[in-house]
Amino acid sequence: MTEKSLPVAVDAMGGDYAPDQIVEGARLAKESGIPIVLFGTEQALDDIQDIETIYVSEVVEMDEDPGQAVRRKKDSSLIRAAEYVRDGHSAAMVSAGNTGATMASALLRMGRLKGVARPAIATPIPTLEGDHPVILLDSGANAECQPEWLLQFAEMGAVYSRDRFAVAKPKVGLLSIGEEAGKGNSLIKDSYEILNSGDWETVSKAEFIGNVEGRDLMSGAVDVVVTDGFTGNVALKTLEGTAKAIVKALFSAFSSSEDAKAGADLLGPSLLPLYHKLDPDSVGGAVLLGVNGIAIVSHGSSSANAILNAIKTAHELYRDNHVANLQSVLKP
Amino acid sequence: MTEKSLPVAVDAMGGDYAPDQIVEGARLAKESGIPIVLFGTEQALDDIQDIETIYVSEVVEMDEDPGQAVRRKKDSSLIRAAEYVRDGHSAAMVSAGNTGATMASALLRMGRLKGVARPAIATPIPTLEGDHPVILLDSGANAECQPEWLLQFAEMGAVYSRDRFAVAKPKVGLLSIGEEAGKGNSLIKDSYEILNSGDWETVSKAEFIGNVEGRDLMSGAVDVVVTDGFTGNVALKTLEGTAKAIVKALFSAFSSSEDAKAGADLLGPSLLPLYHKLDPDSVGGAVLLGVNGIAIVSHGSSSANAILNAIKTAHELYRDNHVANLQSVLKP
Repeated sequence: MTEKSLPVAVDAMGGDYAPDQIVEGARLAKESGIPIVLFGTEQALDDIQDIETIYVSEVVEMDEDPGQAVRRKKDSSLIRAAEYVRDGHSAAMVSAGNTGATMASALLRMGRLKGVARPAIATPIPTLEGDHPVILLDSGANAECQPEWLLQFAEMGAVYSRDRFAVAKPKVGLLSIGEEAGKGNSLIKDSYEILNSGDWETVSKAEFIGNVEGRDLMSGAVDVVVTDGFTGNVALKTLEGTAKAIVKALFSAFSSSEDAKAGADLLGPSLLPLYHKLDPDSVGGAVLLGVNGIAIVSHGSSSANAILNAIKTAHELYRDNHVANLQSVLKP
Repeated sequence: MTEKSLPVAVDAMGGDYAPDQIVEGARLAKESGIPIVLFGTEQALDDIQDIETIYVSEVVEMDEDPGQAVRRKKDSSLIRAAEYVRDGHSAAMVSAGNTGATMASALLRMGRLKGVARPAIATPIPTLEGDHPVILLDSGANAECQPEWLLQFAEMGAVYSRDRFAVAKPKVGLLSIGEEAGKGNSLIKDSYEILNSGDWETVSKAEFIGNVEGRDLMSGAVDVVVTDGFTGNVALKTLEGTAKAIVKALFSAFSSSEDAKAGADLLGPSLLPLYHKLDPDSVGGAVLLGVNGIAIVSHGSSSANAILNAIKTAHELYRDNHVANLQSVLKP
C-alpha cells in the first residue's frame, strides 16, 4: 500500500439517514476504487462484510452540544475518526453528523496548521452560469471574526478553489453591501484594507476583486467569497432556503393541472441539469480549512450519493496534497 | 380637500427608467384615485398636463455619494419632496432613485420620530407559502447596530406588519445562525436578551419567537425578521440574487428545445402566480421606518407597475395613520 492509498474515515453514525445511507455511500465509493474505513457501533455495523469497520462505543447526537460531546464522548465515531487521521492511518474524515462536533473533533485531534488563527468552513455554492462552484468561507465556524482571520480565509479559499476546481488564479471577493471600498461594517472595511494591500495575492496566486454582494454568490463572477462565519452562515442558509422554496413551489405548480403535468413531462429533460446543479447532494460537502488534515462536513440530510461525493472530494484533496498546499501559503 | 387626500410626492427623476416609467406609474395611481404631485426638472416634466408638477433645478444621480448629494443639491427632487411632506403639503414621498440619498433626504428634512435611535429600512420579502410578505429590517440603513436599536426595529416592524398586511399579532424573529438562544454573534446574543425580556411585546401587540435562520425568510413561519443593516442587506441581496438566477435559468431551459417550448406553453398558466410572487415590482417598495413621515424607496429598476404599487402602499400607510401608530409604541 503506497501512502496515497490510505482509506477515507467515514462516520457511519452521523446524519439523518445514518447508518444505512452512509454505509451505502461508502460502499459506492469503495466500488469506485477509494479505500474506506467505517467508524460506528457494533450494533450499526455488525453485518458489514465488504468494508473495513472500526467499532466505537459512543455516538454524538445531531443536536448535542458540540463542546460537551467531544469532551465526554472520547470513544465516539467522530473523535476516533479524527484520531485515525491524526495518527496517519487515514487520508481524511467525512461526517454528515453534528457539524459543530465534527469541527471540534477535527480541531482538537488534528490541530491547526501552523500560523492559522481560526479554521473556517468552506462551502461550495453551485453557480448557475459559471462552470464551477463558488467557495463561501467562513460559512459558520466563527460567529465573530477579526480582519486578519479574513485574510487567512482568503488565502486558504484560493488554494482550495485551485485544488478542488482547478481555478488557476481564483478571483477572491469580500462579501459586503456595496461594491465601493468604503461600504460595509467596520470588520469589512478593515478587512478590505488588509486584502487590498499585501503580497498575499502573489503567494496565493489569487486576485482580490474587492467587495462583492449577496447577488454575486451564484453568478460565477467570483470564485471565492470571504466573510465572517455569522454573515456567511446567514447568506448560505438564505440561499439554500430560497432555492428550496422555489423548487418546492415549482413542483407544486407542475402537478396543479393536467396541462401543467403534460408540460412538466415535456420540460423534464431540460430542467434536469438545473435541478442537479441546485441539489446540495451533488456538491460534495463543506470542508474545514485550517486544520492539519482533511475533514469534510456533509449535509445532515445526506443521501448515499451525497456521501459518495463527499468521499470523492476527500480522496482527491488528499491525493493532491491539499493540506501541504494550504500550509505553503500561510505564514507560520 | 380633507386632510386624508393629501397627494403622494413622487420623485420623477430617480430610477433606471426615469422619468418615463415613473410618470406612467404616477398616472396609473392617479387614475386609481390617489392624488399625486410629481417632482422633476422642467425639461423632464414640461409635457405633463394631467398631473400636478413641481419643478426643481437639480437631480441626484443614482451613484452619487448620498451625504454630499443632500448637502449640496438643496433644489433636488428628493430634498424638495421630503420638504413637501415635512410641511404638511404631501402624504408621503416615493422614489426609485439613489437609496442612500432618499433616506438621507427623509431623515434630514422630516426628522426622526420621538425616541427613535436610528431609522431602519423595512423590506417586504415575498413568501411562497404564507399569505403575506415577511418584513425584513434593517435591510440596509445601519451597517453597524446596537442591541437597543434592534428592539426598536422589532417594535416598528410589528406595527408595520399590522398596518400594511393586517397581521393582528405579528411573529417577530431575530435573524441568527441557529434557533437556540445562545447562537449568533455578540450583537445577536445581547439583542436576544432584550427582545426576550421586556414588555415591548404587549405594547407592540407582537410575539417574539426567538432566533430564526435565513431559510425562514421565505417560509411564512415568521412575520417580521429583525437584524442589523449589514446582515439584512446581505440576506436580502442573496435572496434576490438566488431567485433571479433560478428564474433566469428556468427561462433559459424553457427555450432550450422544441419539446421544452411546448412544455413551457402548457405550464405557463400554472407558473404565472409564482412568477408574480417573485417579481420585486409587485411588493411595492421598502419603507424607511422611524422618520416623522412616510418615505418609500422603490427598486432602481422599477417599472410603472412597481411605482404604482409603491404609491398605493404610501397612500394606504398615510390613510391608516401609520406614522402615529409607530410613535405610539416607541418610548419617547
